[in-house]
Amino acid sequence: MPFPDLAARLAQVRLLVFDVDGVLTDGTITISGARRWSVTDGFGFLLARRGGLKTALCSGRNDPEIEARAERLRIDALRLGRMDKGAGVTELAAELGVTPAETLFVGDDLFDLPGLAAAGVAAVPADARPELRRRADWVLSAPGGRGAAREVIEAVLRARGDWERVLAEFTGGGDD
Amino acid sequence: MPFPDLAARLAQVRLLVFDVDGVLTDGTITISGARRWSVTDGFGFLLARRGGLKTALCSGRNDPEIEARAERLRIDALRLGRMDKGAGVTELAAELGVTPAETLFVGDDLFDLPGLAAAGVAAVPADARPELRRRADWVLSAPGGRGAAREVIEAVLRARGDWERVLAEFTGGGDD
Amino acid sequence: MPFPDLAARLAQVRLLVFDVDGVLTDGTITISGARRWSVTDGFGFLLARRGGLKTALCSGRNDPEIEARAERLRIDALRLGRMDKGAGVTELAAELGVTPAETLFVGDDLFDLPGLAAAGVAAVPADARPELRRRADWVLSAPGGRGAAREVIEAVLRARGDWERVLAEFTGGGDD
Amino acid sequence: MPFPDLAARLAQVRLLVFDVDGVLTDGTITISGARRWSVTDGFGFLLARRGGLKTALCSGRNDPEIEARAERLRIDALRLGRMDKGAGVTELAAELGVTPAETLFVGDDLFDLPGLAAAGVAAVPADARPELRRRADWVLSAPGGRGAAREVIEAVLRARGDWERVLAEFTGGGDD
Repeated sequence: MPFPDLAARLAQVRLLVFDVDGVLTDGTITISGARRWSVTDGFGFLLARRGGLKTALCSGRNDPEIEARAERLRIDALRLGRMDKGAGVTELAAELGVTPAETLFVGDDLFDLPGLAAAGVAAVPADARPELRRRADWVLSAPGGRGAAREVIEAVLRARGDWERVLAEFTGGGDD
Repeated sequence: MPFPDLAARLAQVRLLVFDVDGVLTDGTITISGARRWSVTDGFGFLLARRGGLKTALCSGRNDPEIEARAERLRIDALRLGRMDKGAGVTELAAELGVTPAETLFVGDDLFDLPGLAAAGVAAVPADARPELRRRADWVLSAPGGRGAAREVIEAVLRARGDWERVLAEFTGGGDD
Repeated sequence: MPFPDLAARLAQVRLLVFDVDGVLTDGTITISGARRWSVTDGFGFLLARRGGLKTALCSGRNDPEIEARAERLRIDALRLGRMDKGAGVTELAAELGVTPAETLFVGDDLFDLPGLAAAGVAAVPADARPELRRRADWVLSAPGGRGAAREVIEAVLRARGDWERVLAEFTGGGDD
Repeated sequence: MPFPDLAARLAQVRLLVFDVDGVLTDGTITISGARRWSVTDGFGFLLARRGGLKTALCSGRNDPEIEARAERLRIDALRLGRMDKGAGVTELAAELGVTPAETLFVGDDLFDLPGLAAAGVAAVPADARPELRRRADWVLSAPGGRGAAREVIEAVLRARGDWERVLAEFTGGGDD
């Protein structure tokens, strides 16, 4: 990990908050608001829950499709139609009983900057806007919609020492 | 910027006119005319408005989907079903009270050539046809539908000295 | 052009026959048969018509969506649901009054092999199956659905000496 | 082939079992469950049948779209909504009258690990999760949804000595 102390900071994380467009998707959308979601990322939310992490979405859009996807993924809390993502992150942390320092936020565009500032760990997809990448604690290897959420979830589980236990449910043993 | 005097010319721009297919989209379309739009580009139109720029679309297609997208993005004026893009650019400039020299046009295919000639600055996405790239003042780094519009908008705001003010609304301060 | 005599052979071509899936599209399809078509390729069919070339589609699928797209592009003739593409190419040439030697066929998968053999020029997209690439007179630079048809059309118009005239309708003059 | 003895092991394979999302698709999905399928992969299932191979799908999802696609491809057997893929592979082998050692399984994510363990040959797409790639007998060149199934099918037919016969139906002769 090229970011100093990142592993130590990830070990404190108990809540993951995700922006939606450009983070859980590749940022494309049809006129009716249809998005292409990632099954690989979606499976990551199951791993997060099994590893004891809380998850939330915070998007400027208020959209039945996002609600439906969140329900399917069993996300713990939502802030939709929320433009002030700094307040969104703070509220979600309070609602789910963790401190802002225990919260990781992933965003990709300018509206997400206050969310990055409010969270204990600020992560951005590989293809986030430059202003976001410059302010992030962690620039992910994966772009939005193609593994960014999964990368975050696995790294936090590893940093907390929960990965091998979660993985063992699938392998019947440890991994690495 | 590898194009001589480009920054000085961008500083004069007050109106941005975009072709649609291959510029605001990646040029693919379903039989019903559905396109994949870019949320990142869409957010750029908000930045343009906040920075005092006018925006317009000029497409050979006349299509309810384009109208709906334009309304959502609060585009200032449209020319749809307009094959003569040279006249389209001239008319849009007149309608919005700017000179052609203050107008930037972005197009990707042969029908857009007269639009490039009519505008003060002629820009093309990275994946525009060769005849367009050869005649452009500015070949963008981004391909159509994957950041081309956003790249144009931010560069014009920077050249005009408006970028830091627009950005400060998201950061609470300057950027770079 | 790395293929010997290709330019001379392209100069004889009067009819272009295209397979559909993997040639005019990237080979993906939804369960309802929806494809993503290329606007850039579509515009190429207008150029072909203006340059005096005939065009046809020959697909193993018989699908209202393909018919609708063909009508929009003003394709001259169709063979849909036609598994024997060798016969398809021969019939289309006869129907449109050209010889097989004056016909170029573009296909990407095994069913297209007899079509390649029947046509005067055998072209394949960059991502065609290896058996097709091995037998082709011409392996295109563009993959299916992302410019393969446009590349064929422009190259034939250039080889026939018709490109500058077609282009001049857009530029008011010659190009190169 | 960089995997020792792979060709010898592929020569024993009589049944191919595929996970769906991320193997037969690129792992993206709309909220209504719509996927983009590959026509090239689909054609591979025809080749498999002509070459005497059995095929099956084993997915954690139970989804009418998967059933419809399987019917179109004339897949021999399905296990949908099946989380335990180890049992899924074993059952499918029994149902289709082959031994687990004669079965090849392709999967990309953690739920697929027991399927890899149960099958005689464990294959994964190029973009499978690291834990899968680490345990695979064979990491394919193609990613999920873009040729992975086709690559498996052709390699097994070649290893079994059936490829030239299958190919000859399209060429009227041998290939290589």
